[in-house]
Amino acid sequence: MSRTVKLAVIPGDGIGPEVVGEALKVLDAAVQGGDVRFEQTPFSLGAARFLETGDVLTDADLAAIASHDAILLGAVGGVPGDPRLANANIERGLLLKLRFSLDHYVNLRPTVVYPGVPSPLSEPGDVNFVVVREGTEGPYVGNGGAIRQGTPHEIANEVSVNTAYGVERVVRYAFAAAAARQGKLTLVHKTNVLVFAGSLWKRVVDAVSAEFPDVAVDYLHVDAATIFLVTDPARFDVIVTDNLFGDILTDLAGAISGGIGLAASGNINPDGTYPSMFEPVHGSAPDIAGKQLADPTAAILSVSLMLSHLGLETEAARVATAVTADIAARTGAARTTTEVGDAIAALAAN
Amino acid sequence: MSRTVKLAVIPGDGIGPEVVGEALKVLDAAVQGGDVRFEQTPFSLGAARFLETGDVLTDADLAAIASHDAILLGAVGGVPGDPRLANANIERGLLLKLRFSLDHYVNLRPTVVYPGVPSPLSEPGDVNFVVVREGTEGPYVGNGGAIRQGTPHEIANEVSVNTAYGVERVVRYAFAAAAARQGKLTLVHKTNVLVFAGSLWKRVVDAVSAEFPDVAVDYLHVDAATIFLVTDPARFDVIVTDNLFGDILTDLAGAISGGIGLAASGNINPDGTYPSMFEPVHGSAPDIAGKQLADPTAAILSVSLMLSHLGLETEAARVATAVTADIAARTGAARTTTEVGDAIAALAAN
Ligand SMILES: CC(C)[C@H](C(=O)O)[C@@H](O)C(=O)O
Ligand SMILES: CC(C)[C@H](C(=O)O)[C@@H](O)C(=O)O
Repeated sequence: MSRTVKLAVIPGDGIGPEVVGEALKVLDAAVQGGDVRFEQTPFSLGAARFLETGDVLTDADLAAIASHDAILLGAVGGVPGDPRLANANIERGLLLKLRFSLDHYVNLRPTVVYPGVPSPLSEPGDVNFVVVREGTEGPYVGNGGAIRQGTPHEIANEVSVNTAYGVERVVRYAFAAAAARQGKLTLVHKTNVLVFAGSLWKRVVDAVSAEFPDVAVDYLHVDAATIFLVTDPARFDVIVTDNLFGDILTDLAGAISGGIGLAASGNINPDGTYPSMFEPVHGSAPDIAGKQLADPTAAILSVSLMLSHLGLETEAARVATAVTADIAARTGAARTTTEVGDAIAALAAN
Repeated sequence: MSRTVKLAVIPGDGIGPEVVGEALKVLDAAVQGGDVRFEQTPFSLGAARFLETGDVLTDADLAAIASHDAILLGAVGGVPGDPRLANANIERGLLLKLRFSLDHYVNLRPTVVYPGVPSPLSEPGDVNFVVVREGTEGPYVGNGGAIRQGTPHEIANEVSVNTAYGVERVVRYAFAAAAARQGKLTLVHKTNVLVFAGSLWKRVVDAVSAEFPDVAVDYLHVDAATIFLVTDPARFDVIVTDNLFGDILTDLAGAISGGIGLAASGNINPDGTYPSMFEPVHGSAPDIAGKQLADPTAAILSVSLMLSHLGLETEAARVATAVTADIAARTGAARTTTEVGDAIAALAAN
């Protein structure tokens, strides 16, 4: 009756390997003694790999990763401004390529203000919401182009592509999430300016809303949403939005909840056709890499999201509870990356 | 030797007429006794006009407005969800049409945290920056479209158009602004994802930078910029960014500086070919309209921006100083819209 989960691990660059190490330690602790086993395959991908081999993500890498049940990613990206990386675009070639190739149409980003965690807001209130960010469309599709590049007559266009198919599936996921939470869904867009995309999103939300009579629906323009995120973040339950607005709002959400060091995310293919990928929202932070300064909590919380996605709810809750307990016990004294991981692993093993 | 400024006044909807009334009161006070005279022409435009006549902005309106030296606008937009306005899109048809037709390529939005004004941030620090938002390009151009609308096969596209011509002129304006301030310019974009538009913005900033050796240049992705706006807003001096990112960042900036009730803006045509337009960043807030609850300060500060744009620096400073003095004297006791206007007008008359 034992189950084996094939886990692709992409530690990546900078602080990625450090935080992934702690996340795997907590994973081990949370599943130990149970009947599920994680069989890990490491993948060396990111700026370091590119500098070594010139590859960003080969077809063979992609096929190998796709044959796993789930992916844990640390962070990818080299030192900003490194001239050797000028034409690499690790973000588009690796991170976004994985999200698009593996049809991660739900980018799930929860925000919780934990008691005791200092927020830049003087009165954050009881903040607990999740952003359901579309992951495979919008301005991220890479359908831009330029003419007369490098001349005074250059024109550079970016195209945001939005389909009924793509919007409906993520909106339905968001409604289901809201129904399982506080029953409140906020669509964020810019319907007054982006009238075609906005109209599609609005009509899809209205249509799917009929299937979820118990979910209250609200709408905010993206600019107004940023205001409420700092003046009244407790008002939100589930936010559904497009790829770019979701990118912006979730960094802001990470900041108000006391730092991107706690922000976890899942790039989810709810259909199960492809493995889902779990990663902290933060980047590779090369400036603090290797110094045991990084907070591994976001990576650890990403493991909790992964366990939950795999149906291992007991183990997921064990990790989440361990994090909450660890945060509640924080005194403000500095701890190394390993110390945080050890503490949470000990709590998760209970 | 007296000078006459022809001022088009668009009070608009909701709280627009109230705040414009106070702004004009302060304008009168600041210029009284001097040798410049403001000859005002009111234009009835907005949701109310649309409901009355079906017009949003006629060619005749536009031509008449364009023949003025400057424009003061309150706020336009009806009650959200009003079914009679469902197809009006006052924003695109009026506000954006004015900005585009009058080539307002600089949308100037200063942010100051005034001592004594409560900010949602616990430690905002010494915040004083200005966002130079591009006003005539980007995803605002209205070049979107849809096929198979209303079917499960709908595809809705939005196109962001960026030209070397358009980017360079606003970037040059921003550099000049930075040179006259603290000498620090931050480009905000999303170059790692919007690679064509991002590359154009980046290259233009690099090129123009050579003309301003004393301005230090910095770059932030838009998502990271929202983090710094809540964790360290004092780091910014001048931010230059595209139309959509500027829209988002300036609402957030308004929120952290103690509310959109203080956020002023200028839609500027620096060439002087067309009149520039000054407006508070806030909307028409129909829920509090006519109740003397609106804070006219943003509209009054917009008058200060207007005076400065018209070269009337003494008068501009008089208004700005009056606002600062009024804010410093605020006790937290509620004042009516008129009371705030009266107080600032009295100070500006000195
Ligand atoms: C690195 C970048 C491409 C990425 C994004 O924009 O999605 C990141 O900001 C994120 O939010 O995961
Ligand atoms: C009303 C809307 C079209 C406008 C914009 O998006 O520019 C507003 O939000 C602003 O910032 O002035």
